[in-house]
Amino acid sequence: MSPDVETEVPLTARGRPWSARRVPDAAQIIAQTVAAVRPVSADARAAAQDRLDRMTKPRGALGRVEDLAVALAGIAGECPPPLPEPAAVAVFAGDHGVHVQGVTPWPQEVTAQMVANFLAGGAVVNAFARQVGASVTVVDVGVRTPLDAHPDLRDRRVAAGTADMTTGPAMTRDEARRAVAAGIAVAHELVDEGHRCVVTGDMGIANTTPAAALICAFTGADPAVVTGRGTGIDDETLARKTDVVRRALALHAPDPADPLGVVAAVGGFEHAALAGFVLGGAAAGVPVLLDGVNAGAAALVAGGLAPASVGYCLAGHVSAEPGHARALASLGATPLLDLGMRLGEGTGALLALPVVAGAARALQDVATFDAAGVVDKTGG
Amino acid sequence: MSPDVETEVPLTARGRPWSARRVPDAAQIIAQTVAAVRPVSADARAAAQDRLDRMTKPRGALGRVEDLAVALAGIAGECPPPLPEPAAVAVFAGDHGVHVQGVTPWPQEVTAQMVANFLAGGAVVNAFARQVGASVTVVDVGVRTPLDAHPDLRDRRVAAGTADMTTGPAMTRDEARRAVAAGIAVAHELVDEGHRCVVTGDMGIANTTPAAALICAFTGADPAVVTGRGTGIDDETLARKTDVVRRALALHAPDPADPLGVVAAVGGFEHAALAGFVLGGAAAGVPVLLDGVNAGAAALVAGGLAPASVGYCLAGHVSAEPGHARALASLGATPLLDLGMRLGEGTGALLALPVVAGAARALQDVATFDAAGVVDKTGG
Repeated sequence: MSPDVETEVPLTARGRPWSARRVPDAAQIIAQTVAAVRPVSADARAAAQDRLDRMTKPRGALGRVEDLAVALAGIAGECPPPLPEPAAVAVFAGDHGVHVQGVTPWPQEVTAQMVANFLAGGAVVNAFARQVGASVTVVDVGVRTPLDAHPDLRDRRVAAGTADMTTGPAMTRDEARRAVAAGIAVAHELVDEGHRCVVTGDMGIANTTPAAALICAFTGADPAVVTGRGTGIDDETLARKTDVVRRALALHAPDPADPLGVVAAVGGFEHAALAGFVLGGAAAGVPVLLDGVNAGAAALVAGGLAPASVGYCLAGHVSAEPGHARALASLGATPLLDLGMRLGEGTGALLALPVVAGAARALQDVATFDAAGVVDKTGG
Repeated sequence: MSPDVETEVPLTARGRPWSARRVPDAAQIIAQTVAAVRPVSADARAAAQDRLDRMTKPRGALGRVEDLAVALAGIAGECPPPLPEPAAVAVFAGDHGVHVQGVTPWPQEVTAQMVANFLAGGAVVNAFARQVGASVTVVDVGVRTPLDAHPDLRDRRVAAGTADMTTGPAMTRDEARRAVAAGIAVAHELVDEGHRCVVTGDMGIANTTPAAALICAFTGADPAVVTGRGTGIDDETLARKTDVVRRALALHAPDPADPLGVVAAVGGFEHAALAGFVLGGAAAGVPVLLDGVNAGAAALVAGGLAPASVGYCLAGHVSAEPGHARALASLGATPLLDLGMRLGEGTGALLALPVVAGAARALQDVATFDAAGVVDKTGG
C-alpha cells in the first residue's frame, strides 16, 4: 500500500453525502455513505402494485417481473420508475495472496491479462454489454501486475494483491476501508456520468476462495457446503480449496457484526470495493444489479454495513458456484436468471438487465383496463 | 369458413419451397414446407463448441448459454451464427368455442379488445418488444369479433372462432390445414422482410384449455396434471376446465400420429397457426423463439408434422401453467427463463431474446486465448 493512493478518492461533492470543504478520509466516506442510504419507498412500491393490478393483463400474470417492477419503484421512490438506462458494469479487478495455496490451476497473471482483454473489448462481458447497451469500465483495486493506463481503466489500486488469508489477514482494516471507499467513488462517478443502473463485475484469479470464506462468515454455513469449483477445478483442488477456507475462518474467527473486519480478514479487494459499490449505488438511489458469487459475498458485507442497502440490490442470476445461492438466500434475494453460468465479470447480471428494463418499461408503457377499453374480468 | 380465404395464402415463391407456377393449396404448402425442414447442422454445432472451448473464459463457464450458442450455430448452419436481429413477434389471435363451457371468467370479446390494445401499442408485449428491439405483428387467424383493418394486423382469418371441442371437432381438417398454412406464410413473410428470428405470440380467451388438451394428446399426460389456472381461475373453474379437457379427449381419442387430426379435434386456430409458424421458421433456417404453453402445445404439433423442426425451436421461458413444463420436456427443450410468468402474447419469449442474442454475439465477438494473449490453464 502506498500513501498517495488516499488522494485518489474523488473529492467532488455534487450528489455525494460528504462535504467538499475538506478531503474526507475513507472512514468518513463510508460513514457518510452508510448514513445516506435510505430505506426504499413503501409508498412507491404500493403505487407500483396498484398500477400493475390495473394494467391490461390478468393480475399477477407477469410473475416475478411484477416483484421486480415493485422493487424498482421502491428504489426510485416513484412510480413509474425511470428505465435503468444507460447502465454501466464496473469490473473490479484484484489479486489474492491465497493463490499460493494452490486453490486454482490458473496462473495469477491471468487477472492482468483479462483486464487487458476487457479493455480491448474481447471478453464475454464486452460482448454481452454491447448486446444490452451497457458500458464497461474496469477498476484496478489491487491487481498484482502493474497495468498500463487506459481511458476505460480506473486506477483505484489499494495494493498489489491481498496477503494470504491462511497466514494472516488478507488486508489491513485501513486497506479494506480504502477499497470500500473506492467502490463508493466508482458508483458515484458512474451515476454522475448519467448511468441509471450500476452492474457489478469482478475479475481476480482465485477470488471464489475469499468469496466462499465471506459467505461462511456472514451466513454461518460450512465451507464444504459453500466452496465450489470456481473455474472448474478437479476434486483434489476442491478439497484443498475447502480446507483453505476452513483454515482461514479458524485463524480469524471473523465476527459478522464487524463487516469491515470480516472483509479485511478473509476478503479480496474486489469484494471490499464491490461492497462499497453497492453502498454508493444505494446512496445514489439507483438499482445495483448483482452478478455472481463475488457480488453476493460483497452484498453481504454491504448489508452488514448498511442493512437498507440490500433493498437496492437486484440479483441478476444465480451462478453454479454453490455459495452464491446461500448468499442470495441470506440477502432475501431471488435471482432473475439461472443459466448455470460461472464466469463472473458481470456477465450473468448483464443478461438480466433487459428483464429489469422490461419491468420498468411495463410500468411506464402498458395501458390500464380503463384506458384501453378492455373489460376487466373482475369488473365484468 | 368462407372459400375466399384460401386465396389469401401468399403466392410469392421467392425463398419458399413451393412453386409459383400455380396457386398451391394448404395441403401442398404444408407438405412442401415439411419437406424443406432440414436437420440442424452437426458440423456448425461442432465448430461452435470448438470455438467456445478456445474463447477467453474457463471451459463451460457460460453454462446453458453455451448450449444456446451451439444450437444457434446448428440452426444457421454456420459458426459464428448471425445475430437473431431484427426479431419479430407474431401474435396469433383466435377465439374458442369451448369458452361456452365456462373455463374462464373472461368474456370472449376481450380477445378482440386485446388485439386492439396490441395494435395501439399498449400491451405488455408491446412494452417488452420496444425494450428488446423487436417488432410486433398481430395475426387474426380466427377472432370471433370482426376486426378493423390496421397496417400491423395480418388478416389470416380461418373462421369466427373454433367450435366447442366437447361436442365435436374444434375445426375441420381443412380449417386446420389453412391455419397451419397461414402460420407458415407469416413466418416466411417475416423472414422475407429481413427478420432473423421469429418469436411466437398468442392471444385467445380460453386458449389454455385447448393447449392442455393438445399436450395431453401428444404426451399422454393426464388432464389433472396438465390443466392449469391460466389467467388465474379459482378451484371450481379449474375443476370444470380439467373435466372439459378430459371430456374432449374422451370424445375424440386424438391420435398423436395424426398431428393435423389432433389440432383439428382439440386445438385452436392460433395453435394450428403457431405450428405452421414453427415449420415456416424452421424451413427458412431461422431460430423460432417459443413463448408459453400455447407455443409449447403448437411445437408438439409441428414436431409431429416435421420432427426436425424441433431443432429450430428455442424455449424462451417456462410459464406457470403446468402443462408447459410437460410440453417442453416432451420436446427435449430447456427453458431459458423461469419467472413465473403466465401472460402469453410472446412476453416471456421476448424477455429471453437478449440472452439468445448474447449467445450469438459471444461466438462472434469474444477473443480466443491465442488471439488475446491470455494464458489458458490447460496450455499453461
